[in-house]
Amino acid sequence: MVYLCCMQDPSTTRTEIGQLGEFGLIDRLTQPFHNQHSSTVKGVGDDAAVLDTGGDQFSLVSTDMLIEGIHFDLMYMPLKHLGYKAVVVNLSDIYAMNGTPTQITVSIGISNRFSVEGLEEIYAGIQLACDTYGVDLIGGDTTSSNKGLILSITAIGTVDKDKVVYRSGAKVGDLICITGDLGAAYLGLQILEREKQLYLDQPDIQPDLEDQQYLIGRQLKPEARKDMIAAFANNNLKPTSMIDISDGLASELFHLGKQSGVGAFLEESGIPVNQDAKMMAMKFKLDPTTCALSGGEDYELLFTIDPKDVDRVRFLPDIYIAGEIVPAEDGFTLHTTGGKRHQLKAQGWNHFS
Amino acid sequence: MVYLCCMQDPSTTRTEIGQLGEFGLIDRLTQPFHNQHSSTVKGVGDDAAVLDTGGDQFSLVSTDMLIEGIHFDLMYMPLKHLGYKAVVVNLSDIYAMNGTPTQITVSIGISNRFSVEGLEEIYAGIQLACDTYGVDLIGGDTTSSNKGLILSITAIGTVDKDKVVYRSGAKVGDLICITGDLGAAYLGLQILEREKQLYLDQPDIQPDLEDQQYLIGRQLKPEARKDMIAAFANNNLKPTSMIDISDGLASELFHLGKQSGVGAFLEESGIPVNQDAKMMAMKFKLDPTTCALSGGEDYELLFTIDPKDVDRVRFLPDIYIAGEIVPAEDGFTLHTTGGKRHQLKAQGWNHFS
Repeated sequence: MVYLCCMQDPSTTRTEIGQLGEFGLIDRLTQPFHNQHSSTVKGVGDDAAVLDTGGDQFSLVSTDMLIEGIHFDLMYMPLKHLGYKAVVVNLSDIYAMNGTPTQITVSIGISNRFSVEGLEEIYAGIQLACDTYGVDLIGGDTTSSNKGLILSITAIGTVDKDKVVYRSGAKVGDLICITGDLGAAYLGLQILEREKQLYLDQPDIQPDLEDQQYLIGRQLKPEARKDMIAAFANNNLKPTSMIDISDGLASELFHLGKQSGVGAFLEESGIPVNQDAKMMAMKFKLDPTTCALSGGEDYELLFTIDPKDVDRVRFLPDIYIAGEIVPAEDGFTLHTTGGKRHQLKAQGWNHFS
Repeated sequence: MVYLCCMQDPSTTRTEIGQLGEFGLIDRLTQPFHNQHSSTVKGVGDDAAVLDTGGDQFSLVSTDMLIEGIHFDLMYMPLKHLGYKAVVVNLSDIYAMNGTPTQITVSIGISNRFSVEGLEEIYAGIQLACDTYGVDLIGGDTTSSNKGLILSITAIGTVDKDKVVYRSGAKVGDLICITGDLGAAYLGLQILEREKQLYLDQPDIQPDLEDQQYLIGRQLKPEARKDMIAAFANNNLKPTSMIDISDGLASELFHLGKQSGVGAFLEESGIPVNQDAKMMAMKFKLDPTTCALSGGEDYELLFTIDPKDVDRVRFLPDIYIAGEIVPAEDGFTLHTTGGKRHQLKAQGWNHFS
């Protein structure tokens, strides 16, 4: 029963984590688990878990871990922005269930490289997000780390039982909708990374952020689409399926399709890309549509609606109809502005590759 | 609004985290926050947060982060045990509210040093804990880390509204009770650390674990006191205050006292220390009572009862009456078996010192 290091059994087979990818890995690790509680309405596999705690509404639970050097770089991410963003990305998952976030817990691991004042900056950002989105900080854990900063946040929310929207509800013929615009956060990251490299090479050169406040702001201080959930409620619109766009449009569309058992036909002309983002993409010799499909961190919403609801969407600002749900056997197709058809590839972030 | 590294404002004052200690730091960071939701019954400051989600019961939420090299050492902690322990320490916080855990989320950060098979070992431990304690795994996050293993778990539970027990309910004259025995986990750790050092010095020597299965088991595979919460319910006993003993008896007693606005008079003769632990303490030239007061990781329950309930406790197995709650101005006193009185010092773990 008890081992020392020498006795940590080296498995006869060794599968590298990168072979499975993040989602394959999660599937493999969680597959042996089976839910026992009737209060567990939806466990692993959506933006948030759904619990029936006995009231009129379901409770929603979502969690994310952010690690320095993987998810953020303190060379250009101010601590206050980091605190803000860490909360927002979690709240985005609650909104993606058509819910309202109400509480968060924040666990933080820090090395002694950080001062109390630095930590207070992070918490000032957390508090700003709590105030902006109307959530309470209800707990957490504070511990030391050997190296680097780790933030783990759990968001809790509520949703009326008849209003909850899963990834799995998309039907053939439903319209694919996207809020806001995509690709800007990715291009903001490219600018910051370029300036970081230049700074490391020549520390006396002033960074050239090219007045790209919008792109950089989308990367450093994203917002979650609380306003869209309110707009849905005001217009009696219930999407048939929904997911937030954290990893890039293509990856999220594959998640929706997989959970719903359908495919998708996407019009390139319908994918909203901000004008600044388009210009910057070309400057970086990148295809703007590819930035939208694979960039990630936009925290917009991807959802589907029944075609009968199209008028409820058509006159709402900041929502774009970008395609249609098709049978699973038709797969995932991008219809380009040039009239060509491409098979889409799920190309979200793969931290493990 | 946007900075690069060079512009990360170096604060004019720098307070080291170690100056405040873990609990002083949490107080300082969370003090500016104010709850806005009526559903937040109890936020920061107890073993778990308490939420009123509209049903007959309160929801409980607790979270913990475990970092390799700080909270565990993979030189002697088997991966399956690690998964098990990471869950159990969170469930213990739910039991400490007199509640029943129902769900957990698990976020994990791993470097590519780990194989899929290694991760499966961790999840096998997580699953064993889920099965043993009857909780569902409902979500989480899986990401890479640059170095080391990070586990962040959030436990969710329920408690009847009239049964919830806070740290803040202890009254002068209440009896102080302790479940199980204390100090064993700490002595198990001492054995493992000693053998690790010997192994590092001379890798060909076999570790001498001295058949101390109990002590080592208490360190590597602790259990939470689910049985005690059931015993309370069966005997219609509601403690007046409760906390789990994760950091050592003295530290937890100070938490109870601070939250309840009282002091404590502790009888050394009433502190349960296992016989093996006593023997091993002497071998390490440690005082057994000090191991119980400051050792930590026992995950037993410390609670107080109204003296009228003493008969409900007296005949329950594995509960020890170890003292009495006194007015705050009388402070925290240890009455030794030798008849002396010592002022107690809160001496939990200080990761930051």
